Amino acid sequence: MNFSLTTLGVSSASPTTDRYPSAHILNICGRLFLIDCGEGCQMLMKRHGISLMRLERIFLSHLHGDHVFGIFGLLSTLSMSGRTEPLHIYAPEGFDRILQFFREHFLERDTYPVEYHQLTATEPEMLLDDALLTVSALPLRHRVPSYGFLFREKEPGLNVRKSAVAEYSLSVEEILALKSGRDAVRADGTVLRAEALTYVPYRPRSFAYVGDTAVFDGLSDMVKGVDLLYHEATFGDDCADKAAQMFHCTARDAAETALRAGAGRLVIGHFSSRYKDTGVLLRQAREVFPDTEAGMEGAVFEVPEKTHKDE
Amino acid sequence: MNFSLTTLGVSSASPTTDRYPSAHILNICGRLFLIDCGEGCQMLMKRHGISLMRLERIFLSHLHGDHVFGIFGLLSTLSMSGRTEPLHIYAPEGFDRILQFFREHFLERDTYPVEYHQLTATEPEMLLDDALLTVSALPLRHRVPSYGFLFREKEPGLNVRKSAVAEYSLSVEEILALKSGRDAVRADGTVLRAEALTYVPYRPRSFAYVGDTAVFDGLSDMVKGVDLLYHEATFGDDCADKAAQMFHCTARDAAETALRAGAGRLVIGHFSSRYKDTGVLLRQAREVFPDTEAGMEGAVFEVPEKTHKDE
Repeated sequence: MNFSLTTLGVSSASPTTDRYPSAHILNICGRLFLIDCGEGCQMLMKRHGISLMRLERIFLSHLHGDHVFGIFGLLSTLSMSGRTEPLHIYAPEGFDRILQFFREHFLERDTYPVEYHQLTATEPEMLLDDALLTVSALPLRHRVPSYGFLFREKEPGLNVRKSAVAEYSLSVEEILALKSGRDAVRADGTVLRAEALTYVPYRPRSFAYVGDTAVFDGLSDMVKGVDLLYHEATFGDDCADKAAQMFHCTARDAAETALRAGAGRLVIGHFSSRYKDTGVLLRQAREVFPDTEAGMEGAVFEVPEKTHKDE
Repeated sequence: MNFSLTTLGVSSASPTTDRYPSAHILNICGRLFLIDCGEGCQMLMKRHGISLMRLERIFLSHLHGDHVFGIFGLLSTLSMSGRTEPLHIYAPEGFDRILQFFREHFLERDTYPVEYHQLTATEPEMLLDDALLTVSALPLRHRVPSYGFLFREKEPGLNVRKSAVAEYSLSVEEILALKSGRDAVRADGTVLRAEALTYVPYRPRSFAYVGDTAVFDGLSDMVKGVDLLYHEATFGDDCADKAAQMFHCTARDAAETALRAGAGRLVIGHFSSRYKDTGVLLRQAREVFPDTEAGMEGAVFEVPEKTHKDE
């Protein structure tokens, strides 16, 4: 099952000729989550074959324009396309007024409900907890309230080993018992032990998005052990002072957080337009955390399924 | 001297994989005018080498999102780039509230003044009259107040024929007199006639933009004799009823207006996303008005300088 991040917009503040403002799609088993919605997001989604209509939830890290200006066009297009499914949007305080402004001035047809979930947490907080996954908000430190997001697949149910099904000619009732973790006892007294005959089919995967933020203690703990970490890397070593002053990070800061967190892989983005070639940022990050990639339009970063052997 | 239209965004309502919402640049002798500002406009300008900082004026035909949503990012980028020159924006009633919303929620640094000129005319009305050109608003018929724009170069001053300068060894004073249209009389009684020794260096050029509108009597009169006409052509013959119902035009409507107006050349745009290939719209327009082109991203339509012979 798919678990991948597609970076669409990887520019900070002002776009460049080949980098759009922030927009990222997380695909977990076909469920599509949009993280930040910079100008041009809907065009980027179409260009890279990502269905707008299948968008389930939108997470806006903070209300700076380069993370938000694409929302108007996207919401309009969904109306014009006749969406009826509710759309959940998670965003900090103030988004209700933005939504109200949009509705008053621009919405001609209101075909679907927008459910706005206001982000207020000052500590990591669960936003969503369903059969497949959990999503948590991670409070960051920026010039305005800013949140990261942590997506975790849930532990899957047990599978019964195929070899056991054959060897013991398991009945449906016995399989159901074993899958639920209970031992099955036969009429002849044989005990079929769940622990021996079942396995966890895959290890749950995780992704964390760390958008605009200054470096701060405790950040790496919030994203401890994630398989894939997206981290803003607005500046390089040459602008470390500017990064701190603007409540942003350098590529090296991002890599140090990935290292401390023990992340599996790091993707950096949100590059300042001063870096025509982001190679310098990638090199600086890799000096600290070698398994780093630079986000670019349309790049897909997969977290492979970690299947357990069934024998 | 340059006089050209660059079509950047030629999609109506929803963008497609290769068409952005409405945005057009008119370049008159290096002066840059933006007509409509759909989402992604600033990226398109950068991609096609058009300077954002040199933008002089913005004309918004009406306040539907597909003509407006790019303004937020554009205004932000101009601030971040440190623009100090005033920016003139012409738009119908309501744009002041949009601007106010933008300033309250998104503007971090206010580096340049925006001068908003509210469009209210119910008859064609002059918006700008300077040394080089005039710009007029043309009231159209749409679901909301909508305006076209007519740009006309002014009649240039007279030039003195090079051959006359040599033949009569004209003095600076005589040249200045002739250029101002006055005859020069020499001490020996010789009369140097301005009419004979000067010429009009070029014929003024004109461009009209007819954005979202239904067909109506009097439209072609408003754009009579323009060298270049941009006209919306949202639909084809197959959707003539829908066009009328939505207060839009078909490609054939656009061509009929161009024909009645005696336009030099027609560019159609604002294509519905239902037309993957706009060739069908182009063919229908050309049946009526052969000198029609279909707008596309980055296409430049020049109005050549019509120089008068100087001998």
